[in-house]
Amino acid sequence: MSSNATEERVLAAVGERRELVNEAIDEEVPMAEPQRLYEATRYLLEAGGKRLRPAVALLAAEALADVAPLSTDYREFPALDGRRSDAPASQSEGSASDDEGTVDVMRAAVGLEVIQSFTLIHDDIMDDDDLRRGVPAVHEAYDTETAILAGDTLYSKAFELMTDTGAKPERGLEATRLLATTCTRICEGQALDVSFEHRDDILPDEYLEMIEYKTAVLYGAAASTPAVLMGADREVVDALYQYGIDAGCAFQIQDDVLDLTVPSEELGKQRGSDLVEEKETLITLHARQHDVDIAGLVDTESIDEVTETDIDAAVAELETVGSIEYAREMAEDLVEQSKERLTVLPDNEARGLLEDIADYLITRGY
Amino acid sequence: MSSNATEERVLAAVGERRELVNEAIDEEVPMAEPQRLYEATRYLLEAGGKRLRPAVALLAAEALADVAPLSTDYREFPALDGRRSDAPASQSEGSASDDEGTVDVMRAAVGLEVIQSFTLIHDDIMDDDDLRRGVPAVHEAYDTETAILAGDTLYSKAFELMTDTGAKPERGLEATRLLATTCTRICEGQALDVSFEHRDDILPDEYLEMIEYKTAVLYGAAASTPAVLMGADREVVDALYQYGIDAGCAFQIQDDVLDLTVPSEELGKQRGSDLVEEKETLITLHARQHDVDIAGLVDTESIDEVTETDIDAAVAELETVGSIEYAREMAEDLVEQSKERLTVLPDNEARGLLEDIADYLITRGY
Repeated sequence: MSSNATEERVLAAVGERRELVNEAIDEEVPMAEPQRLYEATRYLLEAGGKRLRPAVALLAAEALADVAPLSTDYREFPALDGRRSDAPASQSEGSASDDEGTVDVMRAAVGLEVIQSFTLIHDDIMDDDDLRRGVPAVHEAYDTETAILAGDTLYSKAFELMTDTGAKPERGLEATRLLATTCTRICEGQALDVSFEHRDDILPDEYLEMIEYKTAVLYGAAASTPAVLMGADREVVDALYQYGIDAGCAFQIQDDVLDLTVPSEELGKQRGSDLVEEKETLITLHARQHDVDIAGLVDTESIDEVTETDIDAAVAELETVGSIEYAREMAEDLVEQSKERLTVLPDNEARGLLEDIADYLITRGY
Repeated sequence: MSSNATEERVLAAVGERRELVNEAIDEEVPMAEPQRLYEATRYLLEAGGKRLRPAVALLAAEALADVAPLSTDYREFPALDGRRSDAPASQSEGSASDDEGTVDVMRAAVGLEVIQSFTLIHDDIMDDDDLRRGVPAVHEAYDTETAILAGDTLYSKAFELMTDTGAKPERGLEATRLLATTCTRICEGQALDVSFEHRDDILPDEYLEMIEYKTAVLYGAAASTPAVLMGADREVVDALYQYGIDAGCAFQIQDDVLDLTVPSEELGKQRGSDLVEEKETLITLHARQHDVDIAGLVDTESIDEVTETDIDAAVAELETVGSIEYAREMAEDLVEQSKERLTVLPDNEARGLLEDIADYLITRGY
C-alpha cells in the first residue's frame, strides 16, 4: 500500500475521532470558577491539536473489543468480560456507575489529552517558548503564575477523569497508577532533556531513554489504558504499551531526520535548525561517535544567517558517516517492531488503523 | 484542661509521629535519576516541617481502628473489616499487596505531605517568595524550571503512593479520586487568592471559600483518607472530612488574628504586617463592611517604617467595630464544630488528640 493511501486513511480515522474528542473535552473540562483559571486551562485545549493520543486510545479500545470502528458508544464501551455479570454484587460497591461491564473509554482518552496539555503548558514555561499551536503560549496569553496553576489544575483533572471511568475498581485503580507512573516518567524525561544541554558526551542509549520518557510513555499509556480498563490479559496490556513506546520513539527520531531532509518551505521552518541550535539528536550523537566535529558542522550561530548551501554541506558530511541512515533505519525498525506488537489483537479494521498510524509517524512528510 | 497542657500533648503526639513520617518519606520518595531533579524534589521535604497533615491522618486511623496510639504498624494497619476475609479471592486480583485486610496508612499519609510540598514549591514561584522553612525556596536553591518540574514530579509521586496502599481496590480508587478533587480545589483556592489582590469588594463568604479551598481541603483529605481506605461508613468519612475543613479554616483565620495581637518578637515578624501589605483577611473584610477605611488604617507603605504606635491605633479602630473579635469568635466556633464532628469516632485517646490538635490550632501563640 502506498504511503499516500496510508496517510489518507490515518488522517480520516484521526479526524473522525477528533470531533468526538473535542466534544468530550468540552464536557469533561467545562468552564468553572475561578473564571480566569479555567479559561487558561481550556485555552490550549481549545487551540486545537491532532488528538493523536486520544485517537490511539479509542482505536485500541475498538480493536480489543473487535467492533467495527466508530460503531460503539465510547462512553459505554463493552469491557472484555462484557455483561456476563461474573462479578458478585458487592464488588460494584463504590463504583461511580452501575456496573454493567461498560467503560467510559472516552473519559480516559480525554484524561490522556489533558495530561499532554498540562505538560505542554509547563514545558513552554521551562523552555521559554512563546508560541504553541500557532497561538501565544499560556504563559504569554495570561502570565507565568496562571500558566503554572492552569497546568496544575489540568494535572488533577486528568486524575479525576481516570478514577471515574466506570471500570471495575481494580482496573480503574491500575489505570490510574499507570497514569501516575507515566507522569513521573514524563517529568524525568523533561529533566534529562534539560540536563543534556550542558553535556557533549551523551550516549545514544541515553538519548533513546530520554525520548522514551519524555514522549513515548504517553503513547504507551494511550494504547494500553483501554486494555487495562476493559480487563485485557497482562500480555495484551504489555504489548499495547510497547506498541506506543516503539511508535512514540520512532516518531521522535523521525522528527530529527525530517529536520535535515525536508525542504524548508515544507517544514515550515529552516531546514537544519537543530544543527544551527546545536540540539543533540540521535543523528549528531552517532556522528560524534564517528569523529565528526558537530560544533563545526554549521559555522553560523544564527538561524537567520544560515544558507541552504551550509546545510547541504553538513548533511553531506553526516551522510558520509551514515548518521542520517542510522536514525532513519532505527525509526523504521521501531515502527516494524511496534506493528509486530499488535499481533496480540484480533485481526480487524481498528488494528489495521493502529498499524497505519505507526507507519504514518515515519512516512509523514513533516 | 489548660491550653498549655493541650499544647504539650499535641506537640508530643505530632513529634512522635514526625520521626516515623520522616523515615517513611525517605523510603517512599528516594533519590533517583535524574539526580538534580530528585534532589530538588527531596530538598523541601528534607528541610523539615511539622508534618501536621500526616499526623492528623495517622491519628484518624488510630482513632478509627480504636487502637492505642502508636501501638500498631502504620504500614499494615487493620482495615475496619479486618482479617475476616469477606472478599472473594478474585477481588484481590490486581491489588499491589496480599489482601489481608490491611492498609498502608503511612504511605497515604506521606502522599498527603508530598502534595503539601508540591503546592508550597509552586506557590513560592507564583508568590515570588524566596524563603521557605528557613531555607531558600526551591526556585532559589535550584532554578524556576527545576522547581516547576520538581513540583510536577511530587504531584505524580503522590498519586503513585495513593494508588498503592494495599486497600481494597474500590477504596483505593475512592481515596485517589478524593486526592484528585482535593488538588483541583487547592489550585482553585490559590487562583482565588491571587484574584483577590485586584479586588476591594470581597465578601466574607468568598474569603472563607478561598481559605477552605487553599488550606482546609488538604486537612479534610488528611483526616478522611484513612477512613476511606479502611472502609469506614460514609457518615464517618464525611464527618472526618468536615473536621479537617473546620479545623483548617480556623487555623487560617487564627493566623490573621495572631498577626494583629501577638507582639512582634513572639511572631518573628512585624505585628500587623498584613495591614501594612494591605492583605485582605476576614478582619479587614468585616471592618470594611462596617465602614472602616482599610487603606487608611496604617499610613506607612513599608514594613520597615511602621511603628508599634501605628499598629496599636489600627488595632484599636478594628476593635471598636468588633472585627478582631468577629474573627476570633469565628475561629473558636469552627474549632468547637470540628471537635463535635469527631463524635462519630470511638471515644479513645487518638480521638482526644485530634480534638487537642483542633484546640491547638487556635490556642497556639504563633
